Amino acid sequence: MKLGSLKEGGRDGTLIVVDRELRRAVRATGIAPTLQKAMDDWANLAPRLAALADQLRDDKAPGSFELDTSALAAPLPRAYQWADGSAYVVHVELVRRARGVEMPPSFWTDPLMYQGGSDSFIGPNDEIEAVDEAHGIDFEGEIGVIVDDVPMGISAEAARRHIKLVTILNDVSLRNVIVAELAKGFGFFHGKPATAFAPVAVTPDELGDAWDGARLDLPLISTLNGKEFGRPNAATDLTFDFGQLIAHAAKTRHLEAGTIVGSGTVANREAGVGCSCIAERRVRETIDGGKAVTPFMKFGDHVRIEMLDRQGQSIFGAIDQKVVHYLPPG
Amino acid sequence: MKLGSLKEGGRDGTLIVVDRELRRAVRATGIAPTLQKAMDDWANLAPRLAALADQLRDDKAPGSFELDTSALAAPLPRAYQWADGSAYVVHVELVRRARGVEMPPSFWTDPLMYQGGSDSFIGPNDEIEAVDEAHGIDFEGEIGVIVDDVPMGISAEAARRHIKLVTILNDVSLRNVIVAELAKGFGFFHGKPATAFAPVAVTPDELGDAWDGARLDLPLISTLNGKEFGRPNAATDLTFDFGQLIAHAAKTRHLEAGTIVGSGTVANREAGVGCSCIAERRVRETIDGGKAVTPFMKFGDHVRIEMLDRQGQSIFGAIDQKVVHYLPPG
Repeated sequence: MKLGSLKEGGRDGTLIVVDRELRRAVRATGIAPTLQKAMDDWANLAPRLAALADQLRDDKAPGSFELDTSALAAPLPRAYQWADGSAYVVHVELVRRARGVEMPPSFWTDPLMYQGGSDSFIGPNDEIEAVDEAHGIDFEGEIGVIVDDVPMGISAEAARRHIKLVTILNDVSLRNVIVAELAKGFGFFHGKPATAFAPVAVTPDELGDAWDGARLDLPLISTLNGKEFGRPNAATDLTFDFGQLIAHAAKTRHLEAGTIVGSGTVANREAGVGCSCIAERRVRETIDGGKAVTPFMKFGDHVRIEMLDRQGQSIFGAIDQKVVHYLPPG
Repeated sequence: MKLGSLKEGGRDGTLIVVDRELRRAVRATGIAPTLQKAMDDWANLAPRLAALADQLRDDKAPGSFELDTSALAAPLPRAYQWADGSAYVVHVELVRRARGVEMPPSFWTDPLMYQGGSDSFIGPNDEIEAVDEAHGIDFEGEIGVIVDDVPMGISAEAARRHIKLVTILNDVSLRNVIVAELAKGFGFFHGKPATAFAPVAVTPDELGDAWDGARLDLPLISTLNGKEFGRPNAATDLTFDFGQLIAHAAKTRHLEAGTIVGSGTVANREAGVGCSCIAERRVRETIDGGKAVTPFMKFGDHVRIEMLDRQGQSIFGAIDQKVVHYLPPG
């Protein structure tokens, strides 16, 4: 089944079940008012949500309506945890090479992960508010999974069973802020403003044989201002699968239901497939031609991130956003 | 008024109003079922909660009961954001000096802040579960504030008005994990397991003249295994006040209501007042005598963190925790 959240009924939105074709939807209010409430009691509520999805498919769900993705918040409009990995190590290696810095060999065996801000995610068609173009505004196309309760110290194998939903996201990044920020030694903060999510998150069964329990074997398509920017496959060159990423996140603490774990920017070694962020393209330009050519995003620029199944059907719906100039209060 | 959360009624607990003396409490269920719900609509609900607090003070609140802090979760058992500063730069300078590393002068003007995990906080008397003593288990006594909605780009002066509640907390840290983790460049993750909070969070008016709108002018008392460990004053040597810390957190994004902003380990330049974490004492030992003497916490060790008002009354109640050995599943 596919789940989303309407921007109505409060800060956590209203949970809806969406059909496979992303055409029609129905409020799940009688089952769970919000997606967080569904995650909190997933074992009991998921079968009831699935039954509603069947009704919707059969055109027998009372109150169903035509889906308008601009009315959607992120599936979890706010979450208690957003733990983002950097699981395509080929991407990290490229970035380091362009900087002339050697990558520690441990990066191939010990995942990189940062604690992201999760208090106010933005919806698939929400504007990316930025204070200053000089911050180096970039998108990052990623895969994310939403888990139920994960006990501390879990194995990577057992962690797979906690993956309840899969989605895609745009981990908006301010590249020129990040450089100075990481140098301070405490990780990302200002460099990672509000993250945007696709219209829906889906149960793994919706992915068919493209999902092996921990990896999603399909290209993630990014488009910048109407021109395709990249379509790297999300399983190719994935160094750490989602079982490993979840186990990593749970190494010294329990993860609460509704925690989102991210893959980091989807990237392939093969240059021909393009990139899921501008920073990587700039790195490749630097390595190939001595300097970065593609600029970061300006006010008014559009980014679109989407994943199609093998039949060409959009799985999660499209993230489609415009960058706008934000003016601080006062 | 003073607010806490009983461990009942679900993952977010049940909101209670507690009297000044921390003796009696009453469920606020008719007003707001949880503290997060109260934060979500603070302007409307705070006056009603204050009226209930007045009833409780006058012994006229139906259903009031004797407070047992072991029945309490953190005031926010889980939060959408936990942004922890390091606002006592004297502490950072000491740590660096012991390592023989120079501190960048910008640390005196640009706050350090990390994104903390907020999905599963622990209550004031909950055990600190640790996998391995070799991780270097430490406590960190801090001041924290809880804000309502803060717009991106707010000034430090305007940010003060968003402070709705004040509390104290134990930012449990795994020192020997942190060293390797920070070297990876993505900030804290494994080194910061679940954070513990005091029994109650209080509105600023409860602090009287010890609160100037952004700083809390009282000693924070830490006790390790029954022996006083430190009582640094939380206003002395505070480099960045809470207005500045909130404005810093909101530099590139909005902060959702219920965001907790922390001060970092309370520390004073004056050695005689002791420390709010073991790491700082070890640093002082290293500077004075060439080596660290005080060990990190072992399984079975107790830590107590508390703040008394000028009349000797506990303001937030005590954080009083034992470290226990956690065995991973399977």
